[in-house]
Amino acid sequence: MIIVLRLLSPGSGPVSRQLRHAWSCYSTTALAEPSTPSVKTAIPGPKSDALRKDLDIIQNTDLVQFFVDYDRSVGNYIVDVDGNVLLDLFTQIASIPLGYNHPRIMKALTDPANLSQFANRPALGMFPPAEFGKNLSETLLSVAPPGLNQVQTMACGACSIENALKGAFMAYRRRERGGSPPTQQEIDTCLKNTPPGCPKLSVLSFNNAFHGRTMGALALTHTKWAHKLDFPSPDWPIASFPYLKYPLEEFVEENKAEETRCLAEVEDKIASAKRSGQPVACVAVEPMQCEGGDHYASPQFFQGLQDICQKNGIAFLLDEVQTGAGATGKFWLHEHFHLRDPPNLVTFAKKMLTGGFYYTPDMRPTEGGRIFNTWIGDPSKVVLLKAVLDVIRDESLLEKTKDTGNYMLKTLMEAQSQYPNVLSRARGLGSLAAVDFPDGTSRDKMVNKLRSQGVHVGACGTSTMRLRATLTLERKHVDVFADRLHAALRDM
Amino acid sequence: MIIVLRLLSPGSGPVSRQLRHAWSCYSTTALAEPSTPSVKTAIPGPKSDALRKDLDIIQNTDLVQFFVDYDRSVGNYIVDVDGNVLLDLFTQIASIPLGYNHPRIMKALTDPANLSQFANRPALGMFPPAEFGKNLSETLLSVAPPGLNQVQTMACGACSIENALKGAFMAYRRRERGGSPPTQQEIDTCLKNTPPGCPKLSVLSFNNAFHGRTMGALALTHTKWAHKLDFPSPDWPIASFPYLKYPLEEFVEENKAEETRCLAEVEDKIASAKRSGQPVACVAVEPMQCEGGDHYASPQFFQGLQDICQKNGIAFLLDEVQTGAGATGKFWLHEHFHLRDPPNLVTFAKKMLTGGFYYTPDMRPTEGGRIFNTWIGDPSKVVLLKAVLDVIRDESLLEKTKDTGNYMLKTLMEAQSQYPNVLSRARGLGSLAAVDFPDGTSRDKMVNKLRSQGVHVGACGTSTMRLRATLTLERKHVDVFADRLHAALRDM
Repeated sequence: MIIVLRLLSPGSGPVSRQLRHAWSCYSTTALAEPSTPSVKTAIPGPKSDALRKDLDIIQNTDLVQFFVDYDRSVGNYIVDVDGNVLLDLFTQIASIPLGYNHPRIMKALTDPANLSQFANRPALGMFPPAEFGKNLSETLLSVAPPGLNQVQTMACGACSIENALKGAFMAYRRRERGGSPPTQQEIDTCLKNTPPGCPKLSVLSFNNAFHGRTMGALALTHTKWAHKLDFPSPDWPIASFPYLKYPLEEFVEENKAEETRCLAEVEDKIASAKRSGQPVACVAVEPMQCEGGDHYASPQFFQGLQDICQKNGIAFLLDEVQTGAGATGKFWLHEHFHLRDPPNLVTFAKKMLTGGFYYTPDMRPTEGGRIFNTWIGDPSKVVLLKAVLDVIRDESLLEKTKDTGNYMLKTLMEAQSQYPNVLSRARGLGSLAAVDFPDGTSRDKMVNKLRSQGVHVGACGTSTMRLRATLTLERKHVDVFADRLHAALRDM
Repeated sequence: MIIVLRLLSPGSGPVSRQLRHAWSCYSTTALAEPSTPSVKTAIPGPKSDALRKDLDIIQNTDLVQFFVDYDRSVGNYIVDVDGNVLLDLFTQIASIPLGYNHPRIMKALTDPANLSQFANRPALGMFPPAEFGKNLSETLLSVAPPGLNQVQTMACGACSIENALKGAFMAYRRRERGGSPPTQQEIDTCLKNTPPGCPKLSVLSFNNAFHGRTMGALALTHTKWAHKLDFPSPDWPIASFPYLKYPLEEFVEENKAEETRCLAEVEDKIASAKRSGQPVACVAVEPMQCEGGDHYASPQFFQGLQDICQKNGIAFLLDEVQTGAGATGKFWLHEHFHLRDPPNLVTFAKKMLTGGFYYTPDMRPTEGGRIFNTWIGDPSKVVLLKAVLDVIRDESLLEKTKDTGNYMLKTLMEAQSQYPNVLSRARGLGSLAAVDFPDGTSRDKMVNKLRSQGVHVGACGTSTMRLRATLTLERKHVDVFADRLHAALRDM
């Protein structure tokens, strides 16, 4: 519990007003989470509509859903500008780890010892802050996926993918050179975008994958046309991602066959890319496809993928941007896979507050300035991440997320067995949960219905409702969701 | 002048220690800038070396120059962990607008009214904060390049370029479609990275250009092999950027001929790209090439470029990541060009604290979710930008930057006329200044010599010394630089 007092030097402002500010802040951080949602207007309400009209003058706002009063949002409840209080099971596209205005984040923000990290954003690759190495060790390295001890911060998810791919490309070419330095011809041609300096290499990705929206990341993304249309792209190979039938225990053989088919396709695509003169340097895959429709595959599938990569001397990249940071009850989703070796590259962002990637030593650049830009991330986000990780440990949030997740999945299963014509393929892991609808229209109807009853959920794929809770969600929140879900189902 | 007091609730920590913290913060923000540099050790010193050895265990640190004590850095002086106090004329690769720990930035950071913007990073494209539109109007739009009234925030410079290019690609294809919606074939093929959905379009860039290091931005970058080698790239056209002879007034005809030659080359490349089936949708250019070696061109050159773009129906993108935010005495460098029409796209980052781009209405996406990612920037950076812009206005920093810049250029000119065998092509505009050396070795020697005497400068191109001051640099700082420069020149 923190009180921030601002005392201004004489003449620079009325102290009493500053104290009121300070106290209003104090009361925000001390606010308790609401016990229940409360919806007063249509959503978006009139104030959201007015703000959107203003913002639309300067940028396209077609995807804006409502404007938020972040001062009044607390824990798992988001409050919009019209005063509607919603249980948030979408959490800024899965990017809020602990809920809104968490006191430990507030404490980190108002700690004078942290101020200069927020005030002076450095060029991290040239002039890092004194404490940067220590901060990385205490944060990112302390939760590194088993076996990985190299880490690079980045500003966002897409940049993390782009730069992780560079690690894979460099490693591939280093091996091809067999220890020789680059030739003069390579050095000259790379400045002109042409081989051999800019080699014809490719990255294999999967149908329905989403990895970001910069050119390299977008070439691995195959979700919606709005993400891709009109943008030139390298023509890199795409393999099928398994589409599993649920309940899994009833379709063991079918699902195994499906995964075998997909793995065979991966091998085929790698072979034909090699033949066509654009060999695959990296296989990039989400441990669970999120935007594409919450598609899981078995540990055996991912073990098989890693085998194929190792057999072909190809880097294995797991994109944990949406699935990491404890979302599944383990810190990284791929820890559920029991891989024989660590993946070569693991990207993160969202709930980690900073982007970046972990990597094996062979992916590490051997020259300076290869993975680099002005900011390469933001140390102030690492300061906030420290607070998040402390809370995860202090409050055993991985265990709690596992428990709450099981409870959520049970809730979805029960609803599904009660409404088998509406709900199917209920699935989930920790704070990630999903269920399918017969079509996009009925899914959207449910999303809107839930929102009007005070529960804010997301959508993905063509007909999937996606739940993305914080790590602080509890059974009582799931009960609120269950209550509204059943009311909506009865009504549909 | 701000005092932050942290009063903890009973039991959560010793108040006296917190008060000491608070006062140490207070004394930092109140610290006066040193009057002169002070160098105590070699740079990097022993503490920097030790920290680097630690950090190198987890990532490549070849480009780390020294570790910084950001708590003790003030204004135009950076303080390293070994206690060396340097006049900073490189400013985190040109990304610090007002100097270190500026009191107005500190004030914005410690204002309780801003806290929730730092604590809750939103998915800006879906759930913007109540005040976001107003904040954009008061910040980014208030300094928009003349004629531009659309703006999009982004997380970093490279993402800004990548997404600005998308605006150009969409506009190009919209025009080709003549108002028709995309075909089903386009929608289907774009998900597979192939034409017509992912069309064969290109972007024309220039020799020695630098626009960033994600795949699309990197295809426009042609500076050093370390930026490019081993990374696959679209083979997009590259034209020559003018190489001007100095002093400009002595080479009027030669320089005009050089610029005419380059413009003709641009036209040729555009024509041949069209013939080869990969037409140019956008010309991307820095208003002054920074990383490539501080290469200027005349207003007439840029006017000519815009003419060519307009004649060919091609978007004209000015990358002001390093040159904007008042660096040249005008808010944007291209305001010096007196273009007939506004450029279609203007990208920014660095001293703007947030990335992003301005654009003309025809570059605006007509569908939602086209320019989008989870964060699309960070509203907390806009809060800090507000403080920066307020100071720029309150303290007339554009005018002062112009004056100090003229004084700096005069200093370089005088040194150059005294040491014509060492220095050449002295040039500059506001806080951006540069001078060339006979070769990279002598340039590097000077950079190191200056640093050992307490002046921290940068390098760019093959043999250029680059100065990138804050907007708060004064003549007295230039005098310190001049003194050290002359001492070093005498010594060389």
